Amino acid sequence: MSASPHIDKVCLAVDCMGGDHGPSVTLPACQAFLNAHPEAELILVGRADAVAPAAAWPRCTTVVASEVVEMDDPIEVALRRKKDSSMRLAIQQVKPDDAGESAAQACVSAGNTGALMAVSRYLLKTLEGIDRPAIATVMPNELDGYTTVLDLGANVDCTAEHLLQFAVMGSALVAAVEGKENPRVGLLNIGEEAIKGSDTIKRAGELLRAAAASGHMNFHGNVEGNDIFKGTTDIVVCDGFVGNVALKTAEGLAAMLSSFVKQEFTRNLFTRLAALAALPVLSHLKARVDHRRYNGAALLGLRGLVFKSHGSADAFAFEHALNRAYDAARNGLLVRVHDRILETLQAMPAVVSEDESTVPTAESTA
Amino acid sequence: MSASPHIDKVCLAVDCMGGDHGPSVTLPACQAFLNAHPEAELILVGRADAVAPAAAWPRCTTVVASEVVEMDDPIEVALRRKKDSSMRLAIQQVKPDDAGESAAQACVSAGNTGALMAVSRYLLKTLEGIDRPAIATVMPNELDGYTTVLDLGANVDCTAEHLLQFAVMGSALVAAVEGKENPRVGLLNIGEEAIKGSDTIKRAGELLRAAAASGHMNFHGNVEGNDIFKGTTDIVVCDGFVGNVALKTAEGLAAMLSSFVKQEFTRNLFTRLAALAALPVLSHLKARVDHRRYNGAALLGLRGLVFKSHGSADAFAFEHALNRAYDAARNGLLVRVHDRILETLQAMPAVVSEDESTVPTAESTA
Repeated sequence: MSASPHIDKVCLAVDCMGGDHGPSVTLPACQAFLNAHPEAELILVGRADAVAPAAAWPRCTTVVASEVVEMDDPIEVALRRKKDSSMRLAIQQVKPDDAGESAAQACVSAGNTGALMAVSRYLLKTLEGIDRPAIATVMPNELDGYTTVLDLGANVDCTAEHLLQFAVMGSALVAAVEGKENPRVGLLNIGEEAIKGSDTIKRAGELLRAAAASGHMNFHGNVEGNDIFKGTTDIVVCDGFVGNVALKTAEGLAAMLSSFVKQEFTRNLFTRLAALAALPVLSHLKARVDHRRYNGAALLGLRGLVFKSHGSADAFAFEHALNRAYDAARNGLLVRVHDRILETLQAMPAVVSEDESTVPTAESTA
Repeated sequence: MSASPHIDKVCLAVDCMGGDHGPSVTLPACQAFLNAHPEAELILVGRADAVAPAAAWPRCTTVVASEVVEMDDPIEVALRRKKDSSMRLAIQQVKPDDAGESAAQACVSAGNTGALMAVSRYLLKTLEGIDRPAIATVMPNELDGYTTVLDLGANVDCTAEHLLQFAVMGSALVAAVEGKENPRVGLLNIGEEAIKGSDTIKRAGELLRAAAASGHMNFHGNVEGNDIFKGTTDIVVCDGFVGNVALKTAEGLAAMLSSFVKQEFTRNLFTRLAALAALPVLSHLKARVDHRRYNGAALLGLRGLVFKSHGSADAFAFEHALNRAYDAARNGLLVRVHDRILETLQAMPAVVSEDESTVPTAESTA
């Protein structure tokens, strides 16, 4: 494995117009982020009037965009019509020039996921050895840590080779952001036994075992849905359909339980008094499971780092997405994904990716 | 649609040896069930010493089995070796004789799911028009009702036709158990728009819309994972892989949150006092989301009713599984599934099931 890459000077490009709340959330978050990171730089992209207040901020430049990708814009509109959108111009900042230099080392947007992925893929292209980019996010677990889950909706039909690539990219992400150089990978299945699941899943299990045997993966084996929250593995790999359903199901259950707690504690005078007594405990509990702290999904496998904030994020949540992007960029996530995928594929010559008939070599991309 | 079928005299066959706790849980649950249902009859199946105490109970007969399917027995062992198992003999009670009569109208077991499905399918066979049986369970929702989800793991690779059949069977189940004759069906997807998802999901959406157009389905459209807990629809249809992941993910999150609540309230003397003050509220909350009340998954699409209790069920939970089986049998679930599937397929002649080249007719099964 290559030496851990590290970048001292990191600049983030921020799509200030994305999300349900636009600049009213993104600008305060950017200001807080700059205050908390005295080394960081930002490029704020948005309508002239929206980004004007940031012109005077230190370590901050602005880029004016005349268009905005709306949350319900079809992908085609974002891709073909709105060529001067804040989303597109923000992504453009991480695209390397001929000398391999880019204005920013990562881009953050709370804009619509489909558009963000499509425009990122169009502008940045995928890394060599990656057939399809994936979306990775973290969920809290019982060990008071995070479980990284991918893919979360970018790919509805996946081959075993795609799942292997997701596992490699997820490993690079956890290594970069959490400092675990050899994170454990679980394959999401409907039972622990290797004979469970569809043919694709079984074949993915074989590939992951082969990658582990070659020393390029810390593969734990199959995991089930509940293992995400048990923290059985650092990474849980699945296709985008399954990952999206798991994430939304968890969000739905959390929302229901939260509304039940509120209902029970506001039922009558007695329960309101009980709530008062329990307030410090409930507040601590709430902070512990606050989903805003997990904001910031990574679009992995592109030739540039793009992070997606939840559309409904408030300033606190959006700042967390900025933090994740910053940590990932500083710890060389882009180089890590590139190196890991090539090392893994070279160690497994039998695995030929879907779109290429030859396994790429490190030399061919140097 | 046929007139609602109703059966006055219902007998349940109970596999007393299944589950993690066997007779120590199933027998007390059966006794409580008999006390609560003065019309009900039970056939208790198990080892001679285990079922002996029940010999003297009213409205109760016992059947002695010399073998037990263990929770970790492979399907082959349950199917081919243990031919005198309590599970098998219990299922045997619901198999109709040549005159169409059976000793029991439904069977309940807490034994291992794979074995229960395999033995049920082998002994009972599938209903005409059904390619594959499915497993359906209920989850609580924000409307203080239940959302029925199927399939939960019986089928990892499903065609669009299978998903249509699941929707029909789920509708029959909700009609029978909850008395909603025209329950709303949602297709689990990763977005509400009809263009979302895999080809199989899109085609399933077309079939469900066609069934709705012919008046044989109340199809709401696509739903997402969070809609299960919102109660957007009465029924959520998905393939067994996705359903199993959603269920396990929800179980995992619930377990994590429950353990966090316990940790927070037992952190120190102050938090323990707060817990004391909040105890009535917390108890009420706990009862409201008590998963034991949702115990009892239905194996649908067989020529006999089989219900699966959670393996770890206690007597309270197992009694709930008995209640669900009893309600389903009394409200003619078997006839309802049979009738609905034939009516739907007849209204949609273009839909040819996977295993048969002709659509079955009501006459051919009469």
